[in-house]
Amino acid sequence: MLDFALRAIVYSSALIRHSDCMPQHFLHLADVPEGTLYQLLDMAQRLKRNRKREQVAEGKSIGLLFFNASLRTRTSMDIAAYELGAHALTLDVGKGVWPLEWQDSVIMDGIAAEHIRDAIPVLSRYFHALGVRIFPRFKNYEEDSTDWAIHRIAELSSIPVINLESAFDHPCQALGDLMTIREHVVIPRKKKFVLTWAYHPRALPMSVPNAALIAAARSGMDVVVARPEGFELDERIMEQARSFCERLGSRLEETSDRTEAFEGAHVIYAKSWASRLIYESVDEEARLREMYRDWIVTMDLMKLTDKAIFMHCLPIRRGVVVEEAVLESPFARHIEQAENRLHVQKALLRWIWGDR
Amino acid sequence: MLDFALRAIVYSSALIRHSDCMPQHFLHLADVPEGTLYQLLDMAQRLKRNRKREQVAEGKSIGLLFFNASLRTRTSMDIAAYELGAHALTLDVGKGVWPLEWQDSVIMDGIAAEHIRDAIPVLSRYFHALGVRIFPRFKNYEEDSTDWAIHRIAELSSIPVINLESAFDHPCQALGDLMTIREHVVIPRKKKFVLTWAYHPRALPMSVPNAALIAAARSGMDVVVARPEGFELDERIMEQARSFCERLGSRLEETSDRTEAFEGAHVIYAKSWASRLIYESVDEEARLREMYRDWIVTMDLMKLTDKAIFMHCLPIRRGVVVEEAVLESPFARHIEQAENRLHVQKALLRWIWGDR
Amino acid sequence: MLDFALRAIVYSSALIRHSDCMPQHFLHLADVPEGTLYQLLDMAQRLKRNRKREQVAEGKSIGLLFFNASLRTRTSMDIAAYELGAHALTLDVGKGVWPLEWQDSVIMDGIAAEHIRDAIPVLSRYFHALGVRIFPRFKNYEEDSTDWAIHRIAELSSIPVINLESAFDHPCQALGDLMTIREHVVIPRKKKFVLTWAYHPRALPMSVPNAALIAAARSGMDVVVARPEGFELDERIMEQARSFCERLGSRLEETSDRTEAFEGAHVIYAKSWASRLIYESVDEEARLREMYRDWIVTMDLMKLTDKAIFMHCLPIRRGVVVEEAVLESPFARHIEQAENRLHVQKALLRWIWGDR
Repeated sequence: MLDFALRAIVYSSALIRHSDCMPQHFLHLADVPEGTLYQLLDMAQRLKRNRKREQVAEGKSIGLLFFNASLRTRTSMDIAAYELGAHALTLDVGKGVWPLEWQDSVIMDGIAAEHIRDAIPVLSRYFHALGVRIFPRFKNYEEDSTDWAIHRIAELSSIPVINLESAFDHPCQALGDLMTIREHVVIPRKKKFVLTWAYHPRALPMSVPNAALIAAARSGMDVVVARPEGFELDERIMEQARSFCERLGSRLEETSDRTEAFEGAHVIYAKSWASRLIYESVDEEARLREMYRDWIVTMDLMKLTDKAIFMHCLPIRRGVVVEEAVLESPFARHIEQAENRLHVQKALLRWIWGDR
Repeated sequence: MLDFALRAIVYSSALIRHSDCMPQHFLHLADVPEGTLYQLLDMAQRLKRNRKREQVAEGKSIGLLFFNASLRTRTSMDIAAYELGAHALTLDVGKGVWPLEWQDSVIMDGIAAEHIRDAIPVLSRYFHALGVRIFPRFKNYEEDSTDWAIHRIAELSSIPVINLESAFDHPCQALGDLMTIREHVVIPRKKKFVLTWAYHPRALPMSVPNAALIAAARSGMDVVVARPEGFELDERIMEQARSFCERLGSRLEETSDRTEAFEGAHVIYAKSWASRLIYESVDEEARLREMYRDWIVTMDLMKLTDKAIFMHCLPIRRGVVVEEAVLESPFARHIEQAENRLHVQKALLRWIWGDR
Repeated sequence: MLDFALRAIVYSSALIRHSDCMPQHFLHLADVPEGTLYQLLDMAQRLKRNRKREQVAEGKSIGLLFFNASLRTRTSMDIAAYELGAHALTLDVGKGVWPLEWQDSVIMDGIAAEHIRDAIPVLSRYFHALGVRIFPRFKNYEEDSTDWAIHRIAELSSIPVINLESAFDHPCQALGDLMTIREHVVIPRKKKFVLTWAYHPRALPMSVPNAALIAAARSGMDVVVARPEGFELDERIMEQARSFCERLGSRLEETSDRTEAFEGAHVIYAKSWASRLIYESVDEEARLREMYRDWIVTMDLMKLTDKAIFMHCLPIRRGVVVEEAVLESPFARHIEQAENRLHVQKALLRWIWGDR
């Protein structure tokens, strides 16, 4: 988990290249040092201004290991690799690729044909980086909240692992979010960022709200988390965000009053996520969630803001998470936000492969 | 729908490049101006004679959005992109990619996780062209026959959309068909083209017969549509074909007498399609179709022709649509016809990306 | 089946290139002439020492036709193509690609939409080589043991067909195995290779044991096949292996005594396979197999060897085929063995595409 940060401290010289050092995973935005973070965002902006193919990473291959569905992530990573002269291969686990076993010291006489202890080292020999998407199982809070699965993969990998959305984080999304915020809120000091919970018919992971919270905290904006009672984010994530805010002289607040939250806001970031109750009872969680069907982002709420931009990671349920009118209004920045995934990931791949 | 034609008229100068103009969709062969059409076919012929990789479209990416299965189309588009130095990514909707919602102003609390109003603009930011395959739903004749779905995608797209088979058309197939016809019927004047219906155990779309009809009409050949009563093609497509024939001084006829149709023919194009009855009753349509199990292309029928070539878009049901012997005889051109998909699509991509 | 060998004899001149000759399939390791085999292994070793991308096969495309799941094979072939400047496209039959019919002269009114007699010639027009994975059906021993299916594809193909694991062989695996053996057992004369059967909850193909046996026989090592009664390998494969051993002055033995087999061994190659009984009764085979649950490779067995390396083609069931401790011990070479697939396949593609 700290490889990324440590690596950046130990090998700060631009002369040190990939082949000389340990794998530099990209698992959590919180672990990226300030200097590196701004280097990545600046590079992404340059790449966006002058989009073209450059053969800077020719010969490099990245495996995209998907345990769950994806549109933006698979597409933007695939094109990012191509535009650097590199090559991406998508592997959908369980679809054309063997189902995998995770537990150690298990007698493998069930469905799983292959253990990650063998699959990951093998992929490490073929690829030069591994992107992994693996959602929470919603069985064990400790397991999900420590991002056990992707950390296990990172431990087993001798090549850099990029988190393409884990149980509790989505740092590529966060990087794109930060880029989008910087494009629209040029001077973030004293500006207001609102992460607002929204209703959704399904219980969704906490990965994106966690990631957005860290992105916002690192942007230097004042951050408000608006959510109903019972939908608090994890204490440790809140603490991490608070510590970034303090360092940058901004504030972090929580509220269940959406009117108050939206008033004067400069960024509205909408997202649904499951209540932690789900780890005790799936039915209870669903019942609680149903009580807040009115938590939809409306034009009326948007009008309370200071011409805020509306952000969402997509896919988004129209008429459920947000009124369709908001997405068709000048408030909406969700398409730009999705596009930025491409540019930040190109910067990230260059960084990881030693082209800085 | 007219973008393609309009674009070609407005920006005829070779100096105008992709970045300067509106997206130039390729949705229907009927919309392609005569000059452009022959330019494409000539370029395809040159590319076939000297097949190799050229980096003329380096840096360009095309997304291949499949709502339905495909062998030839996905393969030939993928290789076409590679041989131009470009990059193709196949996205199978609903398999590893989120299921999509189409209806406007809907409350999205069902299965679909993402609306095309968001998905298509996002893909427009990543790719430089979008190929789309989407079959008819057989629910609403108006919707299918106006190719509502692919036109909706084209409206939402800010990059060129290529029709890889829609409810009512298959212009890439038609382009390959035209190339195949030109290779084998050098002087089409007074030559006879027969589009013959064939039995099939399933109700199939009308996209290919529509496309083949337009291709034949634009080739300058005399065209005969042979089909049982109840399997007439759409009036508007027939009218469009008739107008091309008139302009080129050729004839368009319909018959349910296959012997008459095959006599003296130079091209036999076989294809099954559903009766329009299917929009009223699936069972009625199946019953009607079963009555014509003998509509199979036989060696005896082929012998009535003037050494005609046998064409079919594939996949083809042997022993059902055609006698196996025909496919193994010198009449058969279906493999050549499939190959030509590659060459015309390379020409098309070059044209769309401004390399003319 | 003999194309590969014949081709190498007839066109041994390095001046003859792909376009001048018949397709040179790679279906069975046994068919590769001695000289070619060592040329391939030497090239693989060079490519491993200096891994990079070279544009030696630019413009070439290979289709990877998978009738069954795969991790290593699809990944290593895909990257092999990329690192030669070529392009690979994976086609999962039945998933996004039409299901295929095999039987000749059949009335195709069932599920299969397309006949291999059409699909393979079409793919031959698009690609420059075709990799095919097709497992046994376990219905007809004659059909499986003669590798009917992949030979049928090779007959229909006008481009080189590479066997990516057929009913009865896996020559790319065998090539990687030979490379791994050569790396670790430098002088194979008088060294002992043991192919040991292992228990597995499912009835597995005989393709890998057959391939490993031929690889071992061609390495010049003394070969022992350890398996319970009822799990004998096919007589013809044994005969083929024996003939290679005789030519190289080594021995081939069979035993059901594992202690005797492991003693003093230099290579342990573990693999489960079904008993031939399965062709008579699936239940009988399962009952017989269950009797040998204790056929697992243990640390105690490995300690009987002369510091043998442990090999397995993967995926491997931990705690079933082998004790986990063996895979984590210095005996284990299965990761290296998997890596070597990449290097031998790069050499193979260069060879097939005329770059020797």
